[in-house]
Formats: sequence, structure tokens, C-alpha cells
Amino acid sequence: MRDVAIIGIGHTKFGRATKMSHELFSDATLQAMDDAGVELKEIEALFQGAALPGFEEGQVMPAAFSAADLNLGPIPATRCEGACASASVAIRDGAMWVGAGEYDMVIAGGVEKALMMGTSFASRTFAMACHAPTEGPVGLTFPGVFAMAARLYSINYDMPLDTVREKMASVSVKNHRHGALNPLAQFYKKLGDLKVEDVINSKFVADPITLLDCCPFSDGASALVLCSAEEARKYTDEPIYILGMGQGSGGPLSKMADLTKPVSRISSAKMAFKQAGLSPEDIDMLEVHDCFTIAELIALECMGFFDWGEAADATADGQTEIGGEIPVNMSGGLIGKGHPIGATGASQVYWVVKQMRGEAPRGNQIDPVPEYGMTDTLGGDFGTLCHFILGRSKK
Amino acid sequence: MRDVAIIGIGHTKFGRATKMSHELFSDATLQAMDDAGVELKEIEALFQGAALPGFEEGQVMPAAFSAADLNLGPIPATRCEGACASASVAIRDGAMWVGAGEYDMVIAGGVEKALMMGTSFASRTFAMACHAPTEGPVGLTFPGVFAMAARLYSINYDMPLDTVREKMASVSVKNHRHGALNPLAQFYKKLGDLKVEDVINSKFVADPITLLDCCPFSDGASALVLCSAEEARKYTDEPIYILGMGQGSGGPLSKMADLTKPVSRISSAKMAFKQAGLSPEDIDMLEVHDCFTIAELIALECMGFFDWGEAADATADGQTEIGGEIPVNMSGGLIGKGHPIGATGASQVYWVVKQMRGEAPRGNQIDPVPEYGMTDTLGGDFGTLCHFILGRSKK
Repeated sequence: MRDVAIIGIGHTKFGRATKMSHELFSDATLQAMDDAGVELKEIEALFQGAALPGFEEGQVMPAAFSAADLNLGPIPATRCEGACASASVAIRDGAMWVGAGEYDMVIAGGVEKALMMGTSFASRTFAMACHAPTEGPVGLTFPGVFAMAARLYSINYDMPLDTVREKMASVSVKNHRHGALNPLAQFYKKLGDLKVEDVINSKFVADPITLLDCCPFSDGASALVLCSAEEARKYTDEPIYILGMGQGSGGPLSKMADLTKPVSRISSAKMAFKQAGLSPEDIDMLEVHDCFTIAELIALECMGFFDWGEAADATADGQTEIGGEIPVNMSGGLIGKGHPIGATGASQVYWVVKQMRGEAPRGNQIDPVPEYGMTDTLGGDFGTLCHFILGRSKK
Repeated sequence: MRDVAIIGIGHTKFGRATKMSHELFSDATLQAMDDAGVELKEIEALFQGAALPGFEEGQVMPAAFSAADLNLGPIPATRCEGACASASVAIRDGAMWVGAGEYDMVIAGGVEKALMMGTSFASRTFAMACHAPTEGPVGLTFPGVFAMAARLYSINYDMPLDTVREKMASVSVKNHRHGALNPLAQFYKKLGDLKVEDVINSKFVADPITLLDCCPFSDGASALVLCSAEEARKYTDEPIYILGMGQGSGGPLSKMADLTKPVSRISSAKMAFKQAGLSPEDIDMLEVHDCFTIAELIALECMGFFDWGEAADATADGQTEIGGEIPVNMSGGLIGKGHPIGATGASQVYWVVKQMRGEAPRGNQIDPVPEYGMTDTLGGDFGTLCHFILGRSKK
């Protein structure tokens, strides 16, 4: 497989949008194409992540209509669905088609229009990414899954639940602070001076998870222009290379040995590190899937950035801030930036690229600019996991 | 891209199933693995087409749970959705990953459990693959789209509508006759001696389309084992090679110049012929997407097997039967065999492989066995098109 580069990036404002999802995706794509300086006729295929377009807008097969909306002609347009990891699956797929030499330039990204946001259908609808035969009948939704994970974290590491809650709250405080500085974030200029007590004292969603431990449901889109590494410098002085990609699958919770150590995440991260020929020590920044605060802690441990049970203290101690061991979610993450399900994986890549170009929002830019960054995207209750390792130079 | 071979195939009985979709997909996959003589641990990734699992069984991200159901471990499992072409998109994707050298062996296929079959929700639900913003509000469903296509066919080629109806009926007669001989078909041993008048006199669904011009909604699954061509003969004496693949996208009907000449289908077929280095004269058999009788005629013309407006007479004259110019849908097609949406593309490949191995149902086997076969899969109202060209020998 030949090397693949990201030469253009686009990202809508996350939050509540008045536009429909195909318009949001087109906005992000045209932005990415402008950023790369490429023409419509250069795009050979489109890969789109979207999780629930049938439920949200009565539209299935959205990728084909996006290609039409963008006037891309009859090029192949593929929708990938891996719940909240949909965009990452689409990007990995698009990168492979370019890497294989079949296409020289493609669009890859994702979109979601969470029309049921704020209604009683939201959690119920999203819970379809749980295992329907065994988890649906017991009424399990994602706050419940991650509440169980938080309790298990407490038991596994002999850490009082109140202590776990404090450490989790420090994730929320950090990510909200970052998000408040990010103009494209749902909570831009909001909740930036949250305190640990605020998180702990906000209302329970699923004990011990409170409202401020949760990411919001959002509308939004993000898209990338991918091309072969050898062509990349014709378009930009700052191509960002995809050095490693991973994907893993999980099953029903009843088959998982330990909810805090999902094999799908461990396996996917290892795959990405192996392909990149890098290890956690080499990585300068992360965007991880903090759908709930506990999820960020689990991610950091599964990916090998902290030992089992140690991400909690490390986070509370500021080790995941600028200047710490590894800055995590400088964009705000899902918690501060918002979570348009099918777009999140592309948004994570977008913000790693922004950091590597030195274009992060004021106050959130890591200095010096990171050489290597990594994303982690989670679909469902560990059903689909994806990782990307990006670099400013080729391997 | 290196050559890719099909070394194992599986197919459930189409019709109404008592099993859930993940069970149907596992049945087809285990059958394909037995057929290939491969072990679980040899499978490196899974690609699954599924169109509406959220609506049917409250399950999104079904590919991950299929991997778990099959005990494949945390391997990447990707769901592709391109409406009725979902399985073909998944197979094309899986073949590319093998072709790129990233994997040596993968499962690719599709499944659908059309739980709303026989209810008033069926057409309404499937119509989400129409363009929601412009076609949804006018109440367009697929029978209506293809009724318009039939009327346009009559106008374009100055052929009285009653004549078009007779020719369309000959597609139904042929495909039902083939399906009646196919033990895995929904209409096995049924409707095999249908007459043209029966089709014309059956009740109107959308004038001029009658009930017997339509394919049924079905439950079912089909799966393939794909591996690199160089490894294929370790597993089987009869590998079937994927010589060409195509995919194309269409947009809203309002943007289409002519509903009987969809650019997405023409473009996709050309892509497959170009990759294979073959032309229609080289092809010995076809499985095409006859969701409605008129769709088969349009397919044959778009793919270049007959001139514009000539597939109607050719079909009525027996040119698409054994002994004719090009046998089409010897499996029964969607009309006689059934149409489990997300599985159909894989089923088409399955039946081409069966023909090439000389294993077609009694009465449907082409003699001598075909050297080259081709499939055509259609998603929505020409939103997604896919083509595969298969051969008994490498290029």
C-alpha cells in the first residue's frame, strides 16, 4: 500500500443546525476542497460516514445523494456505518482505495443531523447500536453502559466510587475548557470555567454518570480530501500523512470479559501502531472518543498511554493538558465540541491536522506543533473501534 | 491491485425466515467457509451489506455483531449501505482490501430481514432510498418510479404501452420459470408456468406495473470468501476470479436526463468492462437487478448487451434464455428468486459462481459452463449501481 496524505479539511460549526445533513456534508466538503485547492473533476470517489440518516431525515443511501449534491458526477459514493465510528470507517476505507492505487484523490468524512436531539427518542434511537437481541430487551442505553464501566473501574482498581467521580469530572472540566475556546465547538464560550463540583453536582443521568459527564447530541459534518502522498505536495506545503490505521470489532456486552478493557479498542490501537511503526511514546497529542468522561480514561489505558487504572489520577493531575505527558482532546472532544455521531471520526482527524499545521484555536495550540497525533473513535458499546496515527512527515 | 478470487460461497433459502438477520448472515458465512475449507482464524476482515437493519430489528452496526456471532474475534467488520446494492458495495470494498494486499482472506456478503414484508410499511420504508428532500414529499415509491420508466420506454421508442407491457411480462415469465427450478428461490416450484396474460392481468401496483412485474420482499443472506488469486488454488480447484468491478452514483430523479438511460448504470458497467479488459460480446451470462420487469430491460441496454429500445423485443424473442444471445437471470433473478435487499448483490455473485462451476439447479445450467459472467445491482432509483465481471481464468 502506498502512502496517503490529507491535503484538505473541512468542518461545520457543531451544535444545532438549520441545514439538512446533505447540505452540512456539502459545506464541509467544499471547505475541504477549497482548503486543498482541488477541483470537482479531480475527485474520483466519495466515502461517507452516517449513522442514522433513515431515522433522522427518512434518507438511506445518503452518500449517493451527496455526490449528486456536490455535482461530482456518477463517481462511486459509499456510505459506511459503524455507529459513532462511521466517519472513521469511511476514512479508513477511502484511504485504502487511495493507498491501493485505485484512486488518486477522494473525499472521506461524515455527517449527522441529530433531529431527535432533545426529544425522548434520542437515547432510545442511539441505543440501536447496542446489541439488539440481548441488550435491547433489558432497556440498556449508552449512559447505562458507561455507568457500569465507571463502577467496574472503581472495583477493578480499588478506588472509591466518589474518587472515580472526581477524576471523571476532571475530564469534563478539561474538555469543556478546551471546547469553550473552539469557535466550531457546540459549547464555544460556554462552560469554560466549570469546576469539578459542578460536574459532580449536576443531575444524574445514570448513576454515577451525571449530565456533565456526557457529551451532547449535535448536528454537524466534517470532510477530508485524501490523495496519494507522492502527489500531495503539488497541492499543499503541509500535507499530513496517514501513517497507521486500525479497526476492531466487539460483540455483545455479555461476551466481554471486562468492560474497562475492551479487546476491540486494544486490538485496533495495536493495529494502528504496528502499521505506523510507532508506539505511544512517539505520539504528541490525542483526540479520543470521550462520549462519557469514563470513556476517555478507558481509551487512554487501552491505547497504552497509561497503565491500567492510572489514567484517572493522571488526568486529575493535568497530565492530559498542554505541558503534560500527552495533551488529550484539545478541540474540546465530544464533551466540549459536540458529537454529531456520523461526523465525529472526521472531526477528530480535522483537529489533529489543525494542530499539526499550527492552526488550533487560540489557547489550545500545542507548542511546538505536534509531529505525530492520533485519533480514537468508538462505535456503540465497543462494537466498532478505529484509530488513525497521523504525521507531519512520511515514515 | 493484485487479482482476487472467490473460493467459497454461501446462500440461505430466500423467502420468509424465522431466524434473525445475524443468524441468517452467519448461516451463509459458515456455508461459504465450509465450501472454501477455511478456518475461522484465517478470516482477517468482514464486509457486510445491510440496507435497513435499524428499521427491521432495531439494530445498527450489524457487521460488528456478525463478527462476534461468528466468533471471528476483534477483526475489522464494516457495514456498507447502498440501499438494494449494499452487498455489492461491501463485496467491492472487501475485494479492494484483498487486492491492495492488506488482507489475504475476507468475508463479504449481505443480509436482510424484511420484517415489514406484507405490511403497509414495506414500500414506505424502502422508499427512504429515494431522494428524501424532493421525492419523499410527493409520495414517490419504487413501483411508481419504474412505472414512469416503463411509460418513458414506450414514448422513447415509439412502442405502444400495451406492447411494452407484453414485453415486460416476458421478463416475468422467464424469471419465474427459472426461479421455480431453483431450490433456494422464494418461488421454488411456484409460478413456473406463468403466461404473459397472467402477468398483464394481475392487479396493478402502479400502472403499467402489475404485481407480477414486481419482485417480492424477502429475508435472506449470501456470503463469499474472497482471497488473493495466488492463494486461491490452495483451497479450491475452481476459483472464480473477479476480473472487473464498477460502481456509480446517481442523484435525484429531477436531475436525471432520461430515466431509461441512467448515467450511474452506464458509468458503472463501463468501469467494470474497462477493468476486466472485456466487452459485452465476451460475457456468457448475466444476473441483473430485475426489481421490476422494466428494470431488466433498462439494465441490458445500459450495459451494452442490446441497443437502446431493443432489449424488449430481444427478451420476448427468447434471446435472454439458454441458447439465446445472452442468458439472463438463470437463478430466477429478484423476481423469481426473491429480493432480500442487503443480500441481493451477493446472491447474484453466488449464482454466477454456481453456473461457472456447473452447479446451477437442474434445468437452469448453461452448457458449456460460462467462461465469463457479470452481475448488475441497483440501489434505489439509480442512486447506487454496481457491476462485477467474473471469470474462470485470470486475465
